[in-house]
Parts: sequence; C-alpha cells; structure tokens
Amino acid sequence: MEYYQLSKDNLIEYLKDIPKIHEILGDFTDLDIHEIGDGNLNYVFSVTKKDNPKKSVIVKQAVPFLRIAGEDWPLSEDRMRHEINALKEEARLCPKFVPEIYFSSLDMSVVIMQNLSDYPILRQQMIDGKIFPKLADDISTFLANTLFYTSDFALAADVKKEAVSENINPELCKITEDFVLTNPYYDQDETNIYPEDLPQKVMNIIQKNPIVHAEVAEMKYIFMTQAEALLHGDLHIGSIMANSDATYVIDPEFSFYGPMSYDIGALISNFYLNYFAQNYWQKQRGDNDDYQEWLLEQINDIWQKFSYKFEQNWINEVKKGNNEFYVRPWNDPGFALFRKRHMQTILADTIGFTSCKMMRRIVGLAKVKDITTIADGKIRAKVEERVLHLATYMLTRRHQFSDFTQINAIAVQLEHMDEIKG
Amino acid sequence: MEYYQLSKDNLIEYLKDIPKIHEILGDFTDLDIHEIGDGNLNYVFSVTKKDNPKKSVIVKQAVPFLRIAGEDWPLSEDRMRHEINALKEEARLCPKFVPEIYFSSLDMSVVIMQNLSDYPILRQQMIDGKIFPKLADDISTFLANTLFYTSDFALAADVKKEAVSENINPELCKITEDFVLTNPYYDQDETNIYPEDLPQKVMNIIQKNPIVHAEVAEMKYIFMTQAEALLHGDLHIGSIMANSDATYVIDPEFSFYGPMSYDIGALISNFYLNYFAQNYWQKQRGDNDDYQEWLLEQINDIWQKFSYKFEQNWINEVKKGNNEFYVRPWNDPGFALFRKRHMQTILADTIGFTSCKMMRRIVGLAKVKDITTIADGKIRAKVEERVLHLATYMLTRRHQFSDFTQINAIAVQLEHMDEIKG
Repeated sequence: MEYYQLSKDNLIEYLKDIPKIHEILGDFTDLDIHEIGDGNLNYVFSVTKKDNPKKSVIVKQAVPFLRIAGEDWPLSEDRMRHEINALKEEARLCPKFVPEIYFSSLDMSVVIMQNLSDYPILRQQMIDGKIFPKLADDISTFLANTLFYTSDFALAADVKKEAVSENINPELCKITEDFVLTNPYYDQDETNIYPEDLPQKVMNIIQKNPIVHAEVAEMKYIFMTQAEALLHGDLHIGSIMANSDATYVIDPEFSFYGPMSYDIGALISNFYLNYFAQNYWQKQRGDNDDYQEWLLEQINDIWQKFSYKFEQNWINEVKKGNNEFYVRPWNDPGFALFRKRHMQTILADTIGFTSCKMMRRIVGLAKVKDITTIADGKIRAKVEERVLHLATYMLTRRHQFSDFTQINAIAVQLEHMDEIKG
Repeated sequence: MEYYQLSKDNLIEYLKDIPKIHEILGDFTDLDIHEIGDGNLNYVFSVTKKDNPKKSVIVKQAVPFLRIAGEDWPLSEDRMRHEINALKEEARLCPKFVPEIYFSSLDMSVVIMQNLSDYPILRQQMIDGKIFPKLADDISTFLANTLFYTSDFALAADVKKEAVSENINPELCKITEDFVLTNPYYDQDETNIYPEDLPQKVMNIIQKNPIVHAEVAEMKYIFMTQAEALLHGDLHIGSIMANSDATYVIDPEFSFYGPMSYDIGALISNFYLNYFAQNYWQKQRGDNDDYQEWLLEQINDIWQKFSYKFEQNWINEVKKGNNEFYVRPWNDPGFALFRKRHMQTILADTIGFTSCKMMRRIVGLAKVKDITTIADGKIRAKVEERVLHLATYMLTRRHQFSDFTQINAIAVQLEHMDEIKG
C-alpha cells in the first residue's frame, strides 16, 4: 500500500480493511473519532464505539515531517519502524507495561493499539500531586527487563550485533544529540529558549562552565558510542500512562541501541523537575502534603529496585548458563565484582544523563509544563535556578555517589534556601 | 560471477579477465605463481613476471571455512567484504601505510593488491633483533588517522551510524571475544593450549584470580559495546610489513566499529611479548645489544606519538568547524578538559587490552613464535611467567598510569628477577 496521510475523514475507510479491527470494534457504525495527539511528532486518533467505550483503539501515524515545526522540517516515517519494533520487543520482555498492538503497517507508518484511556499520562497527574504506589516497582521492572534482556548479557553475540545494526536511528538520535546534549550549554545557539525571568548569570552556571561542558561532552560521547541495550530513548513522564493499579510505557520512536543509563536518567530527571516545581503546585492546591518527600523517595526507589532486579536477571541468566558472556559459575567472586562495578558505572552515567535532561528542560527548546505553567515569574525563576544548581552539582561529581541519597539531600537543601549564591 | 576456490591451476585463467591486472603484469607469459599464505584464514598467492620481479601482484581469497581448522569450521567469506572495505578506508585516510588495491570482487571474495615483498612481515624481523627507525612514527600516524577520522569526532552523526551498521562483523568479533577475552582465563576451557613447561600455579595467576576475571569481563564488555571507530581489529606484528624505509599494515578482515584502545593494545602487547623473549634470542645471536631497551622505548613512543597526533587531528577538525560534535571554539577550556580525559580513558583501556593480548598468547589457542620457538623449555617457561606477571600488574591497575613508563619499569624489574614469587 502506498503511504497517505490519515485524517478523521479517511480513517474509517482505512480501518475497514483490517480484520483484527473488526474483531475489536464490531461493526463500524456509531464510532467516535478524536484526534488526541498532543505530541510533537505524529498524529494520534482514538476510535471508539459510542455505545461501548470498551470497544476502542488508538491509531498512531508518523508523518514525514516534525509535526511541531511543520512541513518544513522533514523527518522520515522510518521512526514508526523503530516504534513498532521497540513496542514488540518490550511486549516480549514485559507485556504488562506496554499497550497491546493490534496491527501495524510499515507502508502506512501506522500502529493500531490498545486504548489506554483509563490510564492518563503521568505528567499532569504528578503536577496535581497524585501518588502512584506501584510506579517505582513497575517502571524498575520495565527498565531492568528491557535493558538487561536486549544486552550482551542475555543475547547471543551475533543476534545482539544484528539488533544494533537494525536499530540504528540516526534522525531521532540527532534530535537528542542536538537538543539534549549540545545546544543548551552553548550560549550562541539559536534554538535555545531562555526562561523569561531567569537572569543570564544563572544560565552561566551551565553555559560558561568548562567543567560542565567537558562532562556534557562525555555524556554525549557515551550516548553516541555505547551500544549496550535497546533503549526506549525518550522515557520522560509524558511517555508513561498510569493510574493506581497499573503503569504503561508508550511512544518508543526514539528507540535505538544506546547506553542503559540514558533511559534511567531520562526518567529520574522528571522527578527532580517536578520536585522543585511542586512547592508552587502544593500551595495552589492548598495542600500541605508530603508529595515532595514521596518524589525523592521514588528516585532512590527506582534506582534501588532497578539495580536489584537487573542484577537478579543477570544472576539467573548465568545460573541457567544461557549466555556466553560470562562462562564461570554464578557464585564466582569475579562475577560479583564485575557486576558491582558495572552497576556503579550505570549509576554514574545515569546521574550524568539525569543532569543533562534537567538542564535542557530549563535552557533548551523543549520545556516541561511542571515548570512553564507556573504563573508567577519570580517563583518560576527560583525553581529554574534550583534545577540548574542541582544538575551542575550532580553532573560534576557523578562518579562519587553510591545511590541518590546525597543528591536528594542537596535537593532538600536547595529547596530550603531563599537565596542561592552564584 | 559465482564463487569458486582459486588454486595455482586456475588462477591465471581468472586473472586474464581483469584488465587492470594486464596493465600491471603485461602479457601473461612466464609467470611465477607461489602460494605464500601462512595465515590461518585465507589463501594468498603471489603472481610475478619471471623476468621482472617489479611486475607482481598479490591475490588473496577468503574461503568459506577457517583454514587452520579445515572445512569443518565454517566461516563466511563475508570477512573479505570487511577486509576490502577497511583497506579502502585506510587508503583514504593514510595511503602511505596500506598496499595499493588493484581489484576486488565480493562474489569471488578476492582482493588483488600490491606485492610488498620488499617489506617482510615484522614479527620474524623483530625476533631477529632488527631496529625500525620509522616504525613508531608510521604506526602512530596510521592509528591516529584511522581511529580519529572514522569516529564521531570527524564524521557526521548519521554517516558514522551507517558505518557502524555496515561494519558489524559478528563472526570475526566472536573469535576475539572467545579466544582473547574469555577462554584463556577459564581453566575449564578446552580450546586453551597450556605451555608445556609452565606449572599450573603460574597459570593460576590469571585463571584463579577474581580481580583478573572482573577486569577481563570489563574489557570484553568494552570490546562488545563501544562503537567508537573503524578498527583494524587484528593489529599484531604479523599484520605489519616493514623495512627501514616504510611500514605497511595488512589483513584487516577483523575490522569493525569498536573501541579505539583495542588496536593500540593489540600492537603494544607484541612489544612486551618480544621483550621478554628477546633475552633468549640475543644470546642465540651472540649479540649483547640494547634491543630490549629499544622495544620499551617504542612502546612509550607509539603511545606518546599516537596521543599527540590524535589530539592534533581533533584540534584541527574543531578549528575548521567541520564536525558537529564539539561546537565551541577550539581554544575553549572545556574542550581541552574533555580531550585530556578522553585520552586518559583510551590509555586505561589500551593498557587493559595490551594485557589481555599478552595473557592469551601464553595460555590461549594462538601463540607467538617469539616465544614458542624458544628451544629451551625452562627459559621459555620463565618468559611466559614474566609475561603473565606483567600483564596482571598492568590490568589490575589500568586506571592508574599516565603513560607506559611505570609499566616499562616493572618489565625491567621482572626481567632481572631470577625467581618470581607467586
């Protein structure tokens, strides 16, 4: 089939030829069609039976340009191949945490999947101070399984190398390389959007600091050269849908073989961004709750649980003798030592990527609404300044931590300082 | 053309259809054909006019099995694609140091190239104590150019990612992963060949040492995951041809995108192996020269010259603004800091790979004749023991050195110890 762009007008015609969709929707009468995409890259529709909201599908199509920038910014539909491939891998490794795929077409750059409307996007819910009792457990399982089982510790060497090759994703990686790992730290870059009320001298904490520049360059080099595991590639809290019962990860079009630490850092950065913004939102809600404490707990919890589960996966794999990477018995002391060092490296790099992802959300092109929707410019600027201070602190010391406890303590300290010294 | 195996009998018929070969050999009368391959993987022929030795070509063909092991060990001819591709890249980046390619065919897994008979293989010449005044300078240029200009510091991000994908080389990487980075350290492995006169307790220095096992696992993981630059992949002194005037690098069929440090370590390991064997060969020659001193000098020289040239390439590229990796001015202090740290990482990993390449030549399947041809078993065992001691010393401290001076000092100390304590 030749590619054409789907719209509310032609969508039903397209769906009618797909038997699996008939199974789900039944007949094609009385359907509600909504365009629901608030993403920057694609068109997303929900198609639902008016008389039975359970009968519903999500249709996602990649268009050959960057939607947020318009048709002048070409972006190949190849990203849908990456999204479909990653969704299938994730479904194989942790089916509980990804939407069920009903149909996909490379020709049309389309994926049709389970409607997760009972599970709203996490970001707004976290701005609203909602607690998710299963989140840390669920997302750490997602990370431990997707990152471990696509790595050289689980796959045969040749299978993994083919997977690296099939999953190169130059276009979407370039977006990360530029907008996360280059532009925000460079005061001459024209894509940066500077926060209105934040003085230049605060921006200088990252833009005029050679130590930050060298560390960011290291993180960029790691991002570009370390083909460790199949990443989600864009694991912020806008890519997670959840309620109190369950957690789903969506939108893996940035997927490629990269450093494990990148996915973990992407996620954790969002908890710190929300942490500093939360003081404002708590006051808006009239709450005096301990949501900020919950946020910091989640950070350490996600790391600890990920780290434990990843090691358990690894030990199990070595016990079974399934993989050729480590041929000695599972209780060999060299294996324990290698594992501990490896987890320490993942932690140091996770802290590095957490920091970059925080800084770019303040100074770069793409922001988070946790902060941008704070109406009071003075409060907003204070939040932004705290983010940059914590990010710089952790980046320049990233090899010195054994978990997030000390970074969390600095976050609390910054949060209780009225004046931050430059 | 369908693949068939070349032999002395059908070679002329094959060459007659290639116009370029007519240019070089003239008419096809009075040709000397020799099978000269002493490699483990391929068939190599020289074809030379009897009346004019200048008119000569080398024909190299990959056969679909591992030659040293026979037809029972299948190995795809795809390695010839890697060899041709690497030869072409190397010719583009440092034409002085690779044979000229006259013709290549993927169908036939054949490359026809310049006959370098004036430049013998380095290994035997180094066993014989021959000094090469240009070697360190030449080979450091080869390394600095091939490793820098195929990396993310020189290529556009998308071009480099495509290159990674095109150059995955699972079969030949597997040989390194098994025979260099796994089997030698494992006392249960059946492919290891243990030196006749070396007691098990000396082998235990590497086979029963969890610190060595953890470090080797780290080196293996780096080898398998860090896609930094297009490597030669097998840069020992049997892959280098040289006389006092010039240096050539051949046989890059192990080429793939891997860690820069692997090529440098492969090379340097051969100098230490030759160093410890050399005492014996000097006595055989009746020489009392300072060849051992020359060897250690070369090690530091190769590293220092490589490191300097690599940084110069990098600074030039940033000055020209050719590459997007680092967008700030070349004299930015963050760039200097990043560069120094990067060179320090390459050094630490180079020392790691140097060590693995030394250990595997003692305990693993493939040996070096520098040591195996030592007739006196007691002397040979002492050489082997010294190699294992130095390799363990450098591997377990690989992050602590700023160059090879201290490792060289330990080599001298080991060389002058009569009894080595376990």
